Amino acid sequence: MPLRMSTLFLRTLRDDPADAEVASHRLLVRAGYIRRSGPGAYTWLPLGLRVKNKVERIVREEMDAIGGQEVEFPALLPREPYEATGRWADYGDALFRLQDRKGADFLLAPTHEEMFTLLVKDHYSSYKDLPAYLYQIQAKYRDEARPRAGLLRVREFIMKDSYSFTVDDAGLDQAYADHRAAYQKIFARLGLQVVPVRAQAGAMGGSRSEEFLHPSPIGEDTFVESDGGYRANVEAVTTVPPAESDYTDAPPAEVRQTPDSTTIATLVDVSNQLVPRDDRPWNAADTLKCVVLTAVLDGGERRQFIVAVPGDREVDLKRLEAGIGALLEVTGEPGVEQASDDDLRQHPGLVKGYIGPNNTSGLPFFVDPRIVSGSTWITGANASQQHVFGLVAGRDFTWDGVIEATEVRDGDPAPDGSGSLHTRRGIEMGHIFQLGRKYAEALDLKVLDENGKQVVVTMGSYGIGVTRAVAALAESHHDEKGLAWPRAVAPADVHVVATGKGEEIFAAAEQLVTELESNGLTVLYDDRKKVSAGVKFSDVELIGIPTSVVVGRGLADGVVEVKDRATGETQNLDVTSAAESITDIVRAG
Amino acid sequence: MPLRMSTLFLRTLRDDPADAEVASHRLLVRAGYIRRSGPGAYTWLPLGLRVKNKVERIVREEMDAIGGQEVEFPALLPREPYEATGRWADYGDALFRLQDRKGADFLLAPTHEEMFTLLVKDHYSSYKDLPAYLYQIQAKYRDEARPRAGLLRVREFIMKDSYSFTVDDAGLDQAYADHRAAYQKIFARLGLQVVPVRAQAGAMGGSRSEEFLHPSPIGEDTFVESDGGYRANVEAVTTVPPAESDYTDAPPAEVRQTPDSTTIATLVDVSNQLVPRDDRPWNAADTLKCVVLTAVLDGGERRQFIVAVPGDREVDLKRLEAGIGALLEVTGEPGVEQASDDDLRQHPGLVKGYIGPNNTSGLPFFVDPRIVSGSTWITGANASQQHVFGLVAGRDFTWDGVIEATEVRDGDPAPDGSGSLHTRRGIEMGHIFQLGRKYAEALDLKVLDENGKQVVVTMGSYGIGVTRAVAALAESHHDEKGLAWPRAVAPADVHVVATGKGEEIFAAAEQLVTELESNGLTVLYDDRKKVSAGVKFSDVELIGIPTSVVVGRGLADGVVEVKDRATGETQNLDVTSAAESITDIVRAG
Repeated sequence: MPLRMSTLFLRTLRDDPADAEVASHRLLVRAGYIRRSGPGAYTWLPLGLRVKNKVERIVREEMDAIGGQEVEFPALLPREPYEATGRWADYGDALFRLQDRKGADFLLAPTHEEMFTLLVKDHYSSYKDLPAYLYQIQAKYRDEARPRAGLLRVREFIMKDSYSFTVDDAGLDQAYADHRAAYQKIFARLGLQVVPVRAQAGAMGGSRSEEFLHPSPIGEDTFVESDGGYRANVEAVTTVPPAESDYTDAPPAEVRQTPDSTTIATLVDVSNQLVPRDDRPWNAADTLKCVVLTAVLDGGERRQFIVAVPGDREVDLKRLEAGIGALLEVTGEPGVEQASDDDLRQHPGLVKGYIGPNNTSGLPFFVDPRIVSGSTWITGANASQQHVFGLVAGRDFTWDGVIEATEVRDGDPAPDGSGSLHTRRGIEMGHIFQLGRKYAEALDLKVLDENGKQVVVTMGSYGIGVTRAVAALAESHHDEKGLAWPRAVAPADVHVVATGKGEEIFAAAEQLVTELESNGLTVLYDDRKKVSAGVKFSDVELIGIPTSVVVGRGLADGVVEVKDRATGETQNLDVTSAAESITDIVRAG
Repeated sequence: MPLRMSTLFLRTLRDDPADAEVASHRLLVRAGYIRRSGPGAYTWLPLGLRVKNKVERIVREEMDAIGGQEVEFPALLPREPYEATGRWADYGDALFRLQDRKGADFLLAPTHEEMFTLLVKDHYSSYKDLPAYLYQIQAKYRDEARPRAGLLRVREFIMKDSYSFTVDDAGLDQAYADHRAAYQKIFARLGLQVVPVRAQAGAMGGSRSEEFLHPSPIGEDTFVESDGGYRANVEAVTTVPPAESDYTDAPPAEVRQTPDSTTIATLVDVSNQLVPRDDRPWNAADTLKCVVLTAVLDGGERRQFIVAVPGDREVDLKRLEAGIGALLEVTGEPGVEQASDDDLRQHPGLVKGYIGPNNTSGLPFFVDPRIVSGSTWITGANASQQHVFGLVAGRDFTWDGVIEATEVRDGDPAPDGSGSLHTRRGIEMGHIFQLGRKYAEALDLKVLDENGKQVVVTMGSYGIGVTRAVAALAESHHDEKGLAWPRAVAPADVHVVATGKGEEIFAAAEQLVTELESNGLTVLYDDRKKVSAGVKFSDVELIGIPTSVVVGRGLADGVVEVKDRATGETQNLDVTSAAESITDIVRAG
């Protein structure tokens, strides 16, 4: 049966929704694919549900092709397994928590690592049972602080999450490669450009990890790319440090009065006045900025530390967060923020505006990778209105650790020597992680290996955002008139439009629809009688089925007009053979 | 690709799970269809997910066939729409409520009446847009006090819920009939016996309503049935009142001392001693029991009332709840319970054990339908140790209303004259409701009618429990050895088993599997090499695919053995034509 516009639960809208910032939101709502049902929540209408189902089917087929087995967990889960891995707390405000009538704690799952781990533990006990790839396609929940951009950031969304269970790291590498290849195929079939970029594993724990980003100016993720093909999420970029230098002949450091120079800009000015260089003026890169920050540990403890970065670079808190846990030797996912006035008052050894190495606060002192042995700096002298000049790293001060602390900039060198980096924005479509043994250890998932020895199982986890894929497809496949779906995900293969008043027109259109359907195509049929041709044509453009056919005036001459939504090309086809020709067009892709 | 047992995520269990009370729970877990994932929560394993998907597909096809259009709402919904209809409070403890990070209230939807109403309001404005039938198949949530019986009563379950929107009652009747017919087809296709029984609309509001019950001794619902075909949920049964009688010649009522007769039994004894009858002894049916009850209104207010019932009948609180709201003229869904001592102390006019009509408490006084004008009773005289004899209804006392207040018993007459009732137990599989205008009024859903006048839309709501259908199918299709699925829902069409050690056996089995699949059948293939024939045969019985084929010893003679799981019948088939023969068997149904 065709989808008949006369009865289809669809009302296209002429105007953009007031809250729509991005094209996918605007067009998916206007074309009747989705409808807002609450803050950060959308209902799938009949057309939208068809697109979503097609995306799901492609994901499912490619997961099955690598040996994935589909299961389905509840979304409402007990607290205990998430407590055991620490995620109950780690997830912070982003986790929806609730209690049942007896006061027992539950959560709405953001992902299901714990449950899959327990399920495999329940089933398997030997290396012979592995590898196992399990997945589900299902509603997931995140209490987003700022739901936005239509389907791009919502609180309830559909995700495919899969998990690999292998006996060792080699197995994990294979599972990771299998998923990586499947993801490439999935996005290719969807018609969605993605680039895999190196990522920090983040809240999931684990080691190797890549995000599949759809490059888009409205993306929330920033990644860097070199001409030579290096790609990484900014959190994962490693700085190329300058060479260490010999400081044998370096003059001794000197403390000078530097009144009112609490900013890098004023310090540079003062430096150029007090001790002008012969070769060039001092600039911000010659200064060492020592910033006091606070790591907020799981459980709320606030721990201060200092990072020293070149004065021409801004501190990047997200990049710091990726590394700070290891340096402070704490578990969980500490947040990093500027130290508050309260934080600072606890450390009277710190002289605000004049903080430098060798201060008396006793706080951990970390440096950006650019602070290498022999590098020479102008920096705070830990005394009011005083800076020290010619302070040599490794000679005059040391540090407790090195951390990626600064923003990545266009022009920075790629760490693999493949050229200079430029930044781009992208929408995260998928993420693959080598989890390693974190979850298996926490939940005691072990199997017997070939030698009869208990070994902890090695895991990977892999996600694709189905809801978000629909949005990204709309972002990347539209023009000013509306959507223009790739064939693989279009809600129908052909949009047949009957225009005019003659009964013979509707009869011919009906006949064409029947023939197309008997050829196995799906049809959206605009059979509305009291709607103008203009409105119908606008809907064709807005709804965006790849191929449309107008049965109208041309019928008198024995032709119907076929139009390609993406290219705008039209052609007249003999009505008697139109069904076959259109079927060929659709099948040709 | 077949499901290969060598890699399938499946471990059949020899022993019943410790907490399993019913066959479906026991067998679905043992055969590897589901696995417990928390209190009242189950994970669908690969085989179970296939059965569930088949049930969903049948439901979807029949909903589409009556013009249903599928959409999908979030499960996590804002409080406001449910506040507007009163269901936020009405649902009581059964509703999962939670807050987001900003403290806004949300719920996990048990059903979506409010959201569908708002969606239609958002789209439609004219009678020409109607009727509309919308549905979804989706996870639903109920905070069950006592999750039990495996999939039969869980907190998160899959349900098809649909909603009809029509311009008037005639439209609703049509929508109701359409759904009723679709439901009959769905259950017939599933191979699941159901009987539609009249029901009270309950928490959904509305008027006409039927439950589709699967008769089963483990069912939680009790219904009554007459030989003539009357069927109703016990809450919906109406009592056949006796004829009114002429009391012109009835002797006057007399109050007597009846010491220590605070129970019906002692009262009957005392009556037979004090005023023995000539024709027969007094019995409990001659006495009128006046019971003080408390209606607990929405918001917690406790309101007392009295019901008078024949002394041989027990009060049925659930049947009372179905009618009390209307009699007390309150909105919402009052609960009814025995009056507590505290409740009773507020009404000093009541003499415990001797309460009768005409007491001075001023409480509303309701009677069972059997208390008709002219009926004569022995009842409390509202004074300690005294009863009144020969009290005539309509002459000596009146009442504030009639209410179905007593239990239904085997042998009671059917209200439609179709014979006497017997009670049965059943599992509720579906429910259809004429909602009327309750939700449309609360949420202001109106359309213009033919005369350009705004009219409130008339709604129906219709549910089928998908999760529960899987359980009921397992309950009704199994034997002591395991499951025995109807073909329509079996996880595969054929279970091919290779037994023995010869390579030629596995080669022949593999060949057969390939042929069956190329004929369009789905195959579960037991290709395990180190598993005994006995274990494989047990798994065949436990897993319950309708048709199995053993490729083993017989191969030397050129035959394979085909077995029908339900009947146990076996036959040998020539291996060269086995694929065709088996395909015919499966296609024959």
